[in-house]
Amino acid sequence: MRDIRYELYYWPDIQGRGEFVRLALEDAGADYVDVARHAESAGMGVPAMMEFLEGTKTPYRPFAPPFLKAGEQVIAQTANILLFLGPRLGLAPADEAARLWTHQLQLTIADLVVEVHNTHHPIGSDLYYSEQKAEAARRTRDFLQARLPKFLDYFESVLENNPDGSDWMAGRTTTYVDLSMFQMIAGLRYAFPKAMAQMEGDIPMLVALHDRVAARPHIKTYLRSKRRIHFNEDGIFRHYPELDAGASD
Amino acid sequence: MRDIRYELYYWPDIQGRGEFVRLALEDAGADYVDVARHAESAGMGVPAMMEFLEGTKTPYRPFAPPFLKAGEQVIAQTANILLFLGPRLGLAPADEAARLWTHQLQLTIADLVVEVHNTHHPIGSDLYYSEQKAEAARRTRDFLQARLPKFLDYFESVLENNPDGSDWMAGRTTTYVDLSMFQMIAGLRYAFPKAMAQMEGDIPMLVALHDRVAARPHIKTYLRSKRRIHFNEDGIFRHYPELDAGASD
Repeated sequence: MRDIRYELYYWPDIQGRGEFVRLALEDAGADYVDVARHAESAGMGVPAMMEFLEGTKTPYRPFAPPFLKAGEQVIAQTANILLFLGPRLGLAPADEAARLWTHQLQLTIADLVVEVHNTHHPIGSDLYYSEQKAEAARRTRDFLQARLPKFLDYFESVLENNPDGSDWMAGRTTTYVDLSMFQMIAGLRYAFPKAMAQMEGDIPMLVALHDRVAARPHIKTYLRSKRRIHFNEDGIFRHYPELDAGASD
Repeated sequence: MRDIRYELYYWPDIQGRGEFVRLALEDAGADYVDVARHAESAGMGVPAMMEFLEGTKTPYRPFAPPFLKAGEQVIAQTANILLFLGPRLGLAPADEAARLWTHQLQLTIADLVVEVHNTHHPIGSDLYYSEQKAEAARRTRDFLQARLPKFLDYFESVLENNPDGSDWMAGRTTTYVDLSMFQMIAGLRYAFPKAMAQMEGDIPMLVALHDRVAARPHIKTYLRSKRRIHFNEDGIFRHYPELDAGASD
């Protein structure tokens, strides 16, 4: 399976959930095409993605991007894609119990991703932020005061209690969860710089993990490349200064 | 592994996310203990659950219930528990691609569960509904008009396009996803009877699936037993008439 060319399908202008998959593919140096970022004239672009979402390409239709095409197989749901890719890219532990634990951590990261998204979209994902600013301010206050510290404390304790050492989240080597945790810390810093500045003293191991991932050769190259889309206000991690201010209440 | 006595840990007074696991265990006639519903004097009850959540029982601490103890293994995240249990209970397909597809559907159900929960808790899960009623009304309107039809249409199309026939969601036999879909339809009917009455004409295959699951002998017995907790206003599916009314806007 190592020789396969993976096709990743995700929105072309945001990091979003697709970034958790991109980081795994990049770290492993995998051969992949980020389909929606290529030309429609080459049969790619967003229309190629939409064909799958509309169900004309497969009976196993994804509900939403990201999804991955590996040979004839189409796999959606970020954590599920990583469950599939992990062993193939050398980014998951070998035994079943450890793989389930790794996946469990990824699903908990996915839960936090939803809560981050809901800070700017508490009423509806189809509405604009400007249509739900008041509710977003209230929701973000609760998120920064109660939910985010709970999640970060949890992930810090996972590192602290890893029986195989505190360098990585699961086991003694790098997994896709470490890459995703890097993205989480980077995204939170972008969205809530003030709140994170206040919290980072409590999560030294997560901060060290972030730096350890950022220093990995393939990741370092990727982050400097044009393939790494910048954070922006269409993605999951959005910097709205009026929301971050809530942290200092 | 069939001889193992599973320990399920979940809040004792609600169906919640634990119910998706309970339904799989019940359908398979598995030997299990619903730990938090048993007496503290027997070393069980909620305190036994809290020991795991506080990290004193395992380095592989769950972030939240439900979690399952199978021998020495502790597994959290509903979809992850079902990924583990599926093959052991005869409720998952045999080959890897089909298992990933089944898991993908379960994760999409999990996404819908979050959105259902957020209808009554759009601002914060630690706050009471009474503290976020206005926002809940707005969120539910968007949910019933845009999100729920999108999810239900998707799941209906999964049944319709199943290459192995439309009796079950994945493959030609019952999987844990079918049981979860039963729970989803039952819960939505409880929470939003008016909205569902309007929508059910568009999802005949899902309604038939609900009935097919309800008629399974073990499920039928379970639903009549005291082990089946009633829907209530502490769970995920809550009936607040003022929210359901939004459907007729």
